[in-house]
Amino acid sequence: MKKTYLFTPGPTMVPPEVSLSEAQPMIHHRTPQFSQIFYELSEDLKYLFQTKTGEVYTLMSSGTGAMEACVANVLSKGDKALVIATGKFGERWAELCKCFGIEAVVVSVEYGKAAEPSKVEEALKKNSGIKVVFATQSETSTGAVHDIKAISAVVKKYGALLVVDAITGIGVHQFLMDEWNIDVAITGSQKGCMLPPGLAFVCVNSGAWGAIEKGDLPRYYWDFRKMRKNLKNKTTPFTPAVSLIMAMKTAIDMIKKEGIEKVWARHARLAHATREGVKAIGLELFAGADSSNVLTAIKAPEGVDVDKIIKKLRDETGITFTGGQDSLKGKMIRIGHMGYVNDFDIILAISALEKGLYEAGYPVQPGKGLSRVQSLLVAGK
Amino acid sequence: MKKTYLFTPGPTMVPPEVSLSEAQPMIHHRTPQFSQIFYELSEDLKYLFQTKTGEVYTLMSSGTGAMEACVANVLSKGDKALVIATGKFGERWAELCKCFGIEAVVVSVEYGKAAEPSKVEEALKKNSGIKVVFATQSETSTGAVHDIKAISAVVKKYGALLVVDAITGIGVHQFLMDEWNIDVAITGSQKGCMLPPGLAFVCVNSGAWGAIEKGDLPRYYWDFRKMRKNLKNKTTPFTPAVSLIMAMKTAIDMIKKEGIEKVWARHARLAHATREGVKAIGLELFAGADSSNVLTAIKAPEGVDVDKIIKKLRDETGITFTGGQDSLKGKMIRIGHMGYVNDFDIILAISALEKGLYEAGYPVQPGKGLSRVQSLLVAGK
Repeated sequence: MKKTYLFTPGPTMVPPEVSLSEAQPMIHHRTPQFSQIFYELSEDLKYLFQTKTGEVYTLMSSGTGAMEACVANVLSKGDKALVIATGKFGERWAELCKCFGIEAVVVSVEYGKAAEPSKVEEALKKNSGIKVVFATQSETSTGAVHDIKAISAVVKKYGALLVVDAITGIGVHQFLMDEWNIDVAITGSQKGCMLPPGLAFVCVNSGAWGAIEKGDLPRYYWDFRKMRKNLKNKTTPFTPAVSLIMAMKTAIDMIKKEGIEKVWARHARLAHATREGVKAIGLELFAGADSSNVLTAIKAPEGVDVDKIIKKLRDETGITFTGGQDSLKGKMIRIGHMGYVNDFDIILAISALEKGLYEAGYPVQPGKGLSRVQSLLVAGK
Repeated sequence: MKKTYLFTPGPTMVPPEVSLSEAQPMIHHRTPQFSQIFYELSEDLKYLFQTKTGEVYTLMSSGTGAMEACVANVLSKGDKALVIATGKFGERWAELCKCFGIEAVVVSVEYGKAAEPSKVEEALKKNSGIKVVFATQSETSTGAVHDIKAISAVVKKYGALLVVDAITGIGVHQFLMDEWNIDVAITGSQKGCMLPPGLAFVCVNSGAWGAIEKGDLPRYYWDFRKMRKNLKNKTTPFTPAVSLIMAMKTAIDMIKKEGIEKVWARHARLAHATREGVKAIGLELFAGADSSNVLTAIKAPEGVDVDKIIKKLRDETGITFTGGQDSLKGKMIRIGHMGYVNDFDIILAISALEKGLYEAGYPVQPGKGLSRVQSLLVAGK
């Protein structure tokens, strides 16, 4: 009786009621029936981003597509950007700028550490004329979370626009689009939104429109101006992913019912328990005190082939963790705990982690991590 | 008891078994489990495009996204293109070229008529140095089908590359990627593929790679080179739409089981019956003898508010036709019959059409169109 449990940094587990919404009979997208669903979803998405002054556009793409859309819309030829490179995904902002011929100053952050706002300020001071700063809220390649509120305060001091990859952050960590003065933020469907991959959401705040209107980089499919114009008519410029949008409406209704503050608190509690369980087993966190609530990145213990453990657990038990990517390959186990995750999921993730290590001959005392997690969770901590 | 029937030019009706495949438990995309499905699908897609020398990439976008990808990959700064503008969608190629700063010669085709290969040849003769020709197989805005085989023969005489929007053509009309010497062709999931919207497929043939490798337009999310490299490892550069890909595997298995030649023949038969039924009612075809098997575009009879008929049918009976787009608004009724459509669907489409016209006061003799369709279909014609 193998069941599949996704403790991956996306796609995440999808609630059965969301999956079944996806299987509803197809409707045409140029109808009042679809427009009503799409309009309600677009309003609900404002709640997800915590914005009243911004608007949220639904893209049919992965998160990377939404990142490209940001670069293509907010920048113009000759502009200068600043990228806070926090890991594989932070670095993607720099690759995208390069691809569009935009000069980008890169502030490199040590893998697993949070970006220091003072370092960002230094770079802004040293490099005048930065128009846009690109940041990442939760860097899933390292497991670190970054203080977007503090980064925004610095960026605003220098009059730049702030674009945030909150792909894994939204619906997990507190994210306050308006209060933190963020200009553009993005998320993806297969993360905290509890949906399969296929949609990305871009929140554009009022302050970003000047740059977007004046933009001269090539954009057609990604054009925010077309999206804004079409949203006024409760529709999209191009055929939208109807089934995923119907499913997303079900998912966001679940988020609204729980309440976004409670969603954040649940993730904080579950992530804390996971980290404590991992430490009780005797393992070390890759991102230490900067660990995100999105996923727990665990340093591979000396001499242990973690990728083999991950593969064996996945193929034999269905419990799916992920390893490190690119230069971090073989160096970590990543346990995702975002979206459709509750206390008992954490119990079984830690149980599987103990089992995997035990079978690999690592000196783990079965139940030690588990007991620590259990003691926290039953106490509601 | 209102049921929804989509006789629209996409999204089309989705078989329940395909919808349920979409609702399967989520799996992670960086696993051998997903890679196996993705590899098999990518092989099956070659059958759909009828190619042995080309490869098919799965994009997470609408058809327009795939069009943008073609422009961004195949062209370079300073290149000249030729666009066969057959309607709203043909014209989109020209808009995309403009967006990327590419000079495009436009061969305009009268709405509802098929492009004449001789006109294309004339333009190629007059404008030397055309690197890429953009064509449309089935122009859903007018209901006309274009002779891609003949157009390709002309294009090849002048040494240009041929890129074909076969978004609604593939899986409906005969399409022979290799035999017709086509360099790049695209389709979308929500058409002949019987899937919800969310995926687009790009078939790149061997002859296109020289231009793609040398290309210097900005491309990141759309980069065919990344897709080719990742396909070798049975994966995608960015997170793919897992649930739609699992559903697509089910859909293409259905197409393979029927056999692509039989799929084309079924569409030809159903489209013929539809056209004959429409004519028996006393209506005229917008595209006359050039009518596509994808959809039947019917000229709005003088003084009849067809959009009102369409709206009433949709809201009261669930039978969904579409009207004309942009400058053709109010001028036509379009009945889509692609993908998951059989004889009885055509019966009820014509029944609904008669009903709609009758209720609008148009002098229709109930059963006349229907009898004509029935007589053809029962005879297997």
